[in-house]
Amino acid sequence: MPKSPTDLGAAHADSPRGRSPPADYDHVKSPANETIKLLRSLDRKKTRAESGLFLAEGARLAEAALTNGWSPAYAVAGQSALDRPRTADLLRRLQAAGARVLTTTDRILETVSRKDNPQTVITAFRQRLTPLEALPGTGPRRWLALYEVRDPGNLGSILRTADAAGIDGVILVGNCCDPFSTESVRATMGSLFAVRLAEASTDTFLLWRTQQQAELVAASMRAEEPHHQPIFGSRTVILMGNEQSGLPPAIEAACDRLVRIPMQGDADSLNLAAATAIMVYEVWRSHAYAGARP
Amino acid sequence: MPKSPTDLGAAHADSPRGRSPPADYDHVKSPANETIKLLRSLDRKKTRAESGLFLAEGARLAEAALTNGWSPAYAVAGQSALDRPRTADLLRRLQAAGARVLTTTDRILETVSRKDNPQTVITAFRQRLTPLEALPGTGPRRWLALYEVRDPGNLGSILRTADAAGIDGVILVGNCCDPFSTESVRATMGSLFAVRLAEASTDTFLLWRTQQQAELVAASMRAEEPHHQPIFGSRTVILMGNEQSGLPPAIEAACDRLVRIPMQGDADSLNLAAATAIMVYEVWRSHAYAGARP
Repeated sequence: MPKSPTDLGAAHADSPRGRSPPADYDHVKSPANETIKLLRSLDRKKTRAESGLFLAEGARLAEAALTNGWSPAYAVAGQSALDRPRTADLLRRLQAAGARVLTTTDRILETVSRKDNPQTVITAFRQRLTPLEALPGTGPRRWLALYEVRDPGNLGSILRTADAAGIDGVILVGNCCDPFSTESVRATMGSLFAVRLAEASTDTFLLWRTQQQAELVAASMRAEEPHHQPIFGSRTVILMGNEQSGLPPAIEAACDRLVRIPMQGDADSLNLAAATAIMVYEVWRSHAYAGARP
Repeated sequence: MPKSPTDLGAAHADSPRGRSPPADYDHVKSPANETIKLLRSLDRKKTRAESGLFLAEGARLAEAALTNGWSPAYAVAGQSALDRPRTADLLRRLQAAGARVLTTTDRILETVSRKDNPQTVITAFRQRLTPLEALPGTGPRRWLALYEVRDPGNLGSILRTADAAGIDGVILVGNCCDPFSTESVRATMGSLFAVRLAEASTDTFLLWRTQQQAELVAASMRAEEPHHQPIFGSRTVILMGNEQSGLPPAIEAACDRLVRIPMQGDADSLNLAAATAIMVYEVWRSHAYAGARP
């Protein structure tokens, strides 16, 4: 059983540099250690799916996860990290939240990290999705649905935008990339842990939005109405299509409104994360100022 | 002297798979070849600066460069690429535009590419910046200035947005990342070749915008006015700050207007490329509809 945070803090305050780690944390010296092997294998989607775990690299992501009540399963840190009071405190809080905390060598930590300069703390959290029916429902709402988004960097950036814009839920529709990949998690800068994230098939998603009596608005290259023109209803689902192919015609036909982000020049399209940011903030503006405009 | 495109086309149409490449193109079998070594070294900023060259990977980028009149110095392709009529045609046009075209093995091509699956054609173009005073000047204009942008993926995505939104020039102010890095070039999806790009010190930039009698508008976390509130002047410079630290107070003080993109939730800020897309399209909307609103 772990000591209380106070005890650990006191023990650490006395600990001179180079001392062996506190007895609470196992120290791993072998790269063949089973936990290290598990953490390393979480760069594969299959292992993430089977274990229900995913990696968060660095103190910032771990802090964001704890703040939002996510459950850590493991945390691993370089032994020297214990000498930094903030990192030592973070490890204590991760342990108190249920993590098995390990210390190891910088070299072994590097094998777990996907970065050349590994973060001082790498944490494995339990994956968490919100059931579609549990997303915030009544009253004025803005949801964001992504149809077959494929680039984890785009997905991460979009979750960050959704968090900043106070989106009430992000729905991954159809065959999207894994939001729990290291690249996606990193690009969210912690917003993964703050945004409500759901997954749904196309049919389930369309049924849900009908039940919600929400307006379904999609950005489309084939639309004519400029994106800033409409005053959006107070319950809006913004739908964005795949990076390469946009939305299939059947899904566009199910939308209440298609709008076009105007484009000039030689770009055949905006980056998906940029287009999503423009749409999300346009609906925000419309909601915030509905009634104030003609 | 190269044959005419017609001659080359006729020769290629007859060429069975596996035939040796046309005599016009040197075939490189050694990774120690001087041109291959030069191309490989272009992943370093120092070599790019010294040579004035940079790499564009893939047919799409090379097409965009030719369309916009950029000068290719070298093109290298896998020998099998000559069997594809579109690639063979592209190589002919690159040669006609001045490129020295080489064929090589897939293995050597891989050493030049930064991707695991190398593109079929890798081209080295001459770098080109527009002098600040040569950016489009008179009449209604929207320019975009980036202060110390550091992430090449962000910069590439922003150039793509600037192209789509018809921005009249992008100005890199102060110590920015290299727009000609492979990562930046790739993220532009070809827009690098379409957008007018200038570099300037802070002082030169501020002098230029005074001479232009342009309104300088910056997005700032410290601003109070929401970004969608103002009707921007018809000659607007949008200024975006560094990813980590935004804009220094002295530069904010030089702005005519500071606006805030509203944020909720736990994100401490939007991704720079997302914030830039929101600002660029907000100014576009204001310009397009100036006078139509109260």
